[in-house]
Amino acid sequence: MRIDIITVLPELLESPLNHSIVKRAQDKGLAEIHVHNLRDYSTDKHRRVDDYPFGFAAGMVLQIEPIDRILQHLKSQRTYDEVIYTSPDGEPFCQKVANQLSLQENLIILCGHYKGIDHRIREHLITREISIGDYVLTGGELPAAIMTDAIVRLIPGAIGDETSALSDSFQDNLLAPPVYTRPVEYNGWRVPDILLSGHQAKVEEWQHQQSLERTRLLRPDLLEEE
Amino acid sequence: MRIDIITVLPELLESPLNHSIVKRAQDKGLAEIHVHNLRDYSTDKHRRVDDYPFGFAAGMVLQIEPIDRILQHLKSQRTYDEVIYTSPDGEPFCQKVANQLSLQENLIILCGHYKGIDHRIREHLITREISIGDYVLTGGELPAAIMTDAIVRLIPGAIGDETSALSDSFQDNLLAPPVYTRPVEYNGWRVPDILLSGHQAKVEEWQHQQSLERTRLLRPDLLEEE
Repeated sequence: MRIDIITVLPELLESPLNHSIVKRAQDKGLAEIHVHNLRDYSTDKHRRVDDYPFGFAAGMVLQIEPIDRILQHLKSQRTYDEVIYTSPDGEPFCQKVANQLSLQENLIILCGHYKGIDHRIREHLITREISIGDYVLTGGELPAAIMTDAIVRLIPGAIGDETSALSDSFQDNLLAPPVYTRPVEYNGWRVPDILLSGHQAKVEEWQHQQSLERTRLLRPDLLEEE
Repeated sequence: MRIDIITVLPELLESPLNHSIVKRAQDKGLAEIHVHNLRDYSTDKHRRVDDYPFGFAAGMVLQIEPIDRILQHLKSQRTYDEVIYTSPDGEPFCQKVANQLSLQENLIILCGHYKGIDHRIREHLITREISIGDYVLTGGELPAAIMTDAIVRLIPGAIGDETSALSDSFQDNLLAPPVYTRPVEYNGWRVPDILLSGHQAKVEEWQHQQSLERTRLLRPDLLEEE
């Protein structure tokens, strides 16, 4: 799959996209991630891509023209499944959305910045608005990195240990059970005996019970879905 | 304020913490952000900090010992308000939590990685577990960067234009109104006339109405809070 990220701050995305699973998936040819500097599509001699908002609002707003130009350029080369805009008022990003997007061929993610983007872009050029959570960030770059990570790790072959992704939180609407590793005792705190029993069926039953209990306690809303 | 981030992948955090508002806040002396490599606190000659989980689970688990060592080291130097662990089953991160954390003096954020961390760390050493959303990521590094960005931009003086933060989404449980900038017409798509009227009171009324309407349409749950 291919993800094109459009931003005014390409530098901010350097390290998140060049380490860990996202890097490995690119090295293996499973994912292609291209970061584009929106300023390269400005017609202004100072490479400006923002301007003051109409109507006494504070902050700066990304202009429609450079965004339309880069979208036209990209779309002339291939068909995109979605043109995503990261915005706090978008549809909430969740594991189901990540699963769904990981099955697409080509995605564009437009990162907002400053006060936002000209609303006409959202009305006419964006196909999907996604929010990674109810908080305000400096820009859409970290949300783009978050979505890329969540999506790319689901591509078959991206994670070394495939069974690991299947036992992640949310994949079955349950939180993951607690995990423990060596040493068995530290500071008087012991690993639960059942995990040391060597009895696989009992261990798995305990893990499932723990998942259920943790979900009931911490996130009962997950159990109500579907 | 000071934020200490503990991670096995310090490189991943390089560009997010050294650009934009987070960089500016550090340059102005408003925030100090320290990234620590957990491996520096390993007692293993190969600097290992993870091991296989007990009980037939897949993936690797961060061990309690190196984490306890770095926490003891940091806590011996100053008092921390919170030791935060980023986990998908933690309390949801939202603007209210960001506001609250931005008023603290010293925070530690421990980034999970691989399959997670030994559960005894969560029971005995962590004071607060926070999730940035219902999706699974490769590690807690991007969530730590997200939280740092959301928190640091709220420190007075971090954003150039203070009035800008006040009109952000969520600060008053309302989504932000649409914004527009030049040109007035593009591709036949026009900026709403009211914004060009020059009549400040009417513009502000329109913006407030738009905020309410967008919130009712897209996020009615926000209006039910409080």
